[in-house]
Amino acid sequence: MRKFGIAPLRSENFPEWYQQVIKEADLAENSDVRGCMVIKPWGYAIWENMQRILDGMFKKTGHQNAYFPLFIPLKYLESEATHVEGFAKECAVVTHTRLQADDQGKLIPASPLEEPLIVRPTSETIIGESFSRWVHSYRDLPILINQWANVVRWEMRTRLFLRTSEFLWQEGHTAHETRAEAEAETEKMLECYREFAESYMAMPVLCGKKTEMERFPGAVKTLCIEAMMQDRKSLQAGTSHFLGQNFAQSSNIQFMGRNGENQYAWTSSWGVSTRLIGGLIMTHSDDDGLILPPRLAPQHVVILPIIHHEKDESTVQEYCAQIRAQVEKTCYNDRPIGIHIDGRDLNGGVKKWEWIKKGVPLIVEIGPRDREKNSVSILCRYTMEKYTISIEEFIQNLEQELAQIQSGMLERARAFREQNTKQITSKEEFAEFFENQGGYAATFFEENRPLEEAMKEQFSVTIRCILADDTDKNPMGVCAFTGKPTSQKVVWSKSY
Amino acid sequence: MRKFGIAPLRSENFPEWYQQVIKEADLAENSDVRGCMVIKPWGYAIWENMQRILDGMFKKTGHQNAYFPLFIPLKYLESEATHVEGFAKECAVVTHTRLQADDQGKLIPASPLEEPLIVRPTSETIIGESFSRWVHSYRDLPILINQWANVVRWEMRTRLFLRTSEFLWQEGHTAHETRAEAEAETEKMLECYREFAESYMAMPVLCGKKTEMERFPGAVKTLCIEAMMQDRKSLQAGTSHFLGQNFAQSSNIQFMGRNGENQYAWTSSWGVSTRLIGGLIMTHSDDDGLILPPRLAPQHVVILPIIHHEKDESTVQEYCAQIRAQVEKTCYNDRPIGIHIDGRDLNGGVKKWEWIKKGVPLIVEIGPRDREKNSVSILCRYTMEKYTISIEEFIQNLEQELAQIQSGMLERARAFREQNTKQITSKEEFAEFFENQGGYAATFFEENRPLEEAMKEQFSVTIRCILADDTDKNPMGVCAFTGKPTSQKVVWSKSY
Repeated sequence: MRKFGIAPLRSENFPEWYQQVIKEADLAENSDVRGCMVIKPWGYAIWENMQRILDGMFKKTGHQNAYFPLFIPLKYLESEATHVEGFAKECAVVTHTRLQADDQGKLIPASPLEEPLIVRPTSETIIGESFSRWVHSYRDLPILINQWANVVRWEMRTRLFLRTSEFLWQEGHTAHETRAEAEAETEKMLECYREFAESYMAMPVLCGKKTEMERFPGAVKTLCIEAMMQDRKSLQAGTSHFLGQNFAQSSNIQFMGRNGENQYAWTSSWGVSTRLIGGLIMTHSDDDGLILPPRLAPQHVVILPIIHHEKDESTVQEYCAQIRAQVEKTCYNDRPIGIHIDGRDLNGGVKKWEWIKKGVPLIVEIGPRDREKNSVSILCRYTMEKYTISIEEFIQNLEQELAQIQSGMLERARAFREQNTKQITSKEEFAEFFENQGGYAATFFEENRPLEEAMKEQFSVTIRCILADDTDKNPMGVCAFTGKPTSQKVVWSKSY
Repeated sequence: MRKFGIAPLRSENFPEWYQQVIKEADLAENSDVRGCMVIKPWGYAIWENMQRILDGMFKKTGHQNAYFPLFIPLKYLESEATHVEGFAKECAVVTHTRLQADDQGKLIPASPLEEPLIVRPTSETIIGESFSRWVHSYRDLPILINQWANVVRWEMRTRLFLRTSEFLWQEGHTAHETRAEAEAETEKMLECYREFAESYMAMPVLCGKKTEMERFPGAVKTLCIEAMMQDRKSLQAGTSHFLGQNFAQSSNIQFMGRNGENQYAWTSSWGVSTRLIGGLIMTHSDDDGLILPPRLAPQHVVILPIIHHEKDESTVQEYCAQIRAQVEKTCYNDRPIGIHIDGRDLNGGVKKWEWIKKGVPLIVEIGPRDREKNSVSILCRYTMEKYTISIEEFIQNLEQELAQIQSGMLERARAFREQNTKQITSKEEFAEFFENQGGYAATFFEENRPLEEAMKEQFSVTIRCILADDTDKNPMGVCAFTGKPTSQKVVWSKSY
């Protein structure tokens, strides 16, 4: 059996495999500060690509970026009861604003604050406070704001990218004149996330609505995208919340309506975070490490010059530089193709494995014989196939090749999800599914919190979402658990 | 006398004028959280432009972005004695990680941390901790990292952009094999800042070195760029620190050198912040509000359709759309020119004044008669000059016109600084200069801390920098205060 890049294999120990993929790809590491990670350059470059694309989508849909305080006064949180319950258990509290030396010279906190501040776990309340000052009349609406920021939730069990005490995200916050507009916004942004997940991350997602049990604290309705990871668990990859008038009431966002009467605005909020990088890893990586979809890869092509004799050095280097110059003129997905020559004085095999584990789409080895034959030897990371083609063909086909990798990755992930999704119609089938390898169990279901809680207790599964649209020709069925007729279809699974 | 956009005038009350420019341009506002500001969309869009340009410069000089924890364990700070002294007096301290209701149902902090955490005031110590793990051999050097982040310094007296408890910035952190390399990096990044300030912000700066009194806590050498504001005070706009081996020792950044021996790395750090926006405002704005240099303006041109009769509406709107389509194809400074049609149903004069106060470089009014004559009426914000030209001429000259505004703004600011800079050779002259209107006082000076402290006490002035290069043909002179011969030339002034 050949040796793989990552130990253990996915099939042996998925969580440990995940940590090792991150380590070997040099994406991130744990810091000394409990639950806070360091995002290393290769991981951060992926986040920058995500940011650039999402930011473009938000601006295209009329949103503007702004920035609000890191700290939230306690009283703001308290004004929305469900919200504070949801976040009070895990937040960083600032109580002092100075350090001073004690008798032994040890630094201790000094200058206590009259009212403690919370490091934002999310910004509905602090942004609501601004909105309440910005909105006077219906003419001031809608307000369509996005913020790129760090947030803190003091998680007890953390895992790189998936659950960290501090993470990076974007949070959209909007205020509207009518309920219908706010609901339309909530759906529009979910569609934005679906488009991003599928077209850029090559990660197929289900779109739907959370049950009351899984809803964002304070929301009227939470929409989500859910993606199946390779261990068949689900990752909530993005959420878009219709907040009704709940936060408008607690933050006092009132305006003079067209009818001349004062009324509360309707608000929404929506966000995705560095958690997406965890989703990217668990959707695509294999036992040799990370695999990056071309649209998010910091580099598309890495060239490894193969030089065994000094006499070949200048020839090979010139040939590599010439290829780079040509490739740089080529575009993929509206941007110049990213190409890097790894000229480090290291063993060729060591370098090649580094780039395999970092997930670069195409790795190109170039030695003196390639120069003679005007050819290049290519390793396609996603299939691990090797082939040799002429340099002309390589350059000409490069854009198309990357596009094929991108769509191939999406198709592969979609096929995996389909293989692991089952339509289930009875309790017995449900139990059998989750007692075995599990995956997505799709059932008709009449919303029922005690039953959801019982299933969570018994099988550690939750309803990931009430499916948004079901292409089933006969939209009515019977609840798999109670036998009641219903048109509501849900997907159950274990989750992150 | 004509009415101005801003009250009070600069000459009447500069600090209050500054606040009003920010308010009227809708750049930012104070929040309820003491010292923390809300950066509104127009202000944030300027920051995004600054980020994009600086980020490009950093990447071009070989730096990579990464992200490190928001929280710093107390023990890290303590390990560099000067550093902790500099920051202990003003920092946000996290002491608890949960909230719980007390007997009265009031939320109070719970779950105290064993060791309090500091919200980063700067990241030398926490990044140093990572570097110590990343560096093993001289082959791992240099490490060239930049971080875009928020930082917190609990300032007592705050002012929007210039001094806020939380602010946004970038902080570069690098580690090198040799002292010479680290010093060269420090100078290279200062030059980056100078180039950015002058070529993009149109803000002329002095480059130089801080005296020991003004140095960054923990640095061996602090280089800076200093800009003169319109009240003749100086703004420290960016700093680049050579840290010697101080932080390498406290963070234990050691490596195996070429000689086979373990040694400490040489490090640097450098940063600019949202303070730059304060500098932009105080360099260029006038009594009508903000003036933006074209290279940083979120929009270059705003079109105001002038429609008095309904019958003209479609003609004017079509004409405006046609102009926009043509302008959008034009580039300035390698980016498509930003043009916005303000079609809001508001009084034309009100709209025009909004854009004047927001500092858009060119405001174009278009009515039915312009359509007939194929002309456009232009208001150049920087000169407040109005002129009418043909549409062809407008489109053809647009790029050049913006370039002229950009260079004109730099020249105007430079002339102001020259007018308010005086070469001073005696104590008497020095006293007279600062007892009157002041500005930059350039003197020969032999470094002498008691004297610096005395001048600060007496005139509220400090040495802004020891000038980096003096084009004076005779580089020797005598200290203006002690009469000692010296080649060192410094600039004194009041500052922000």
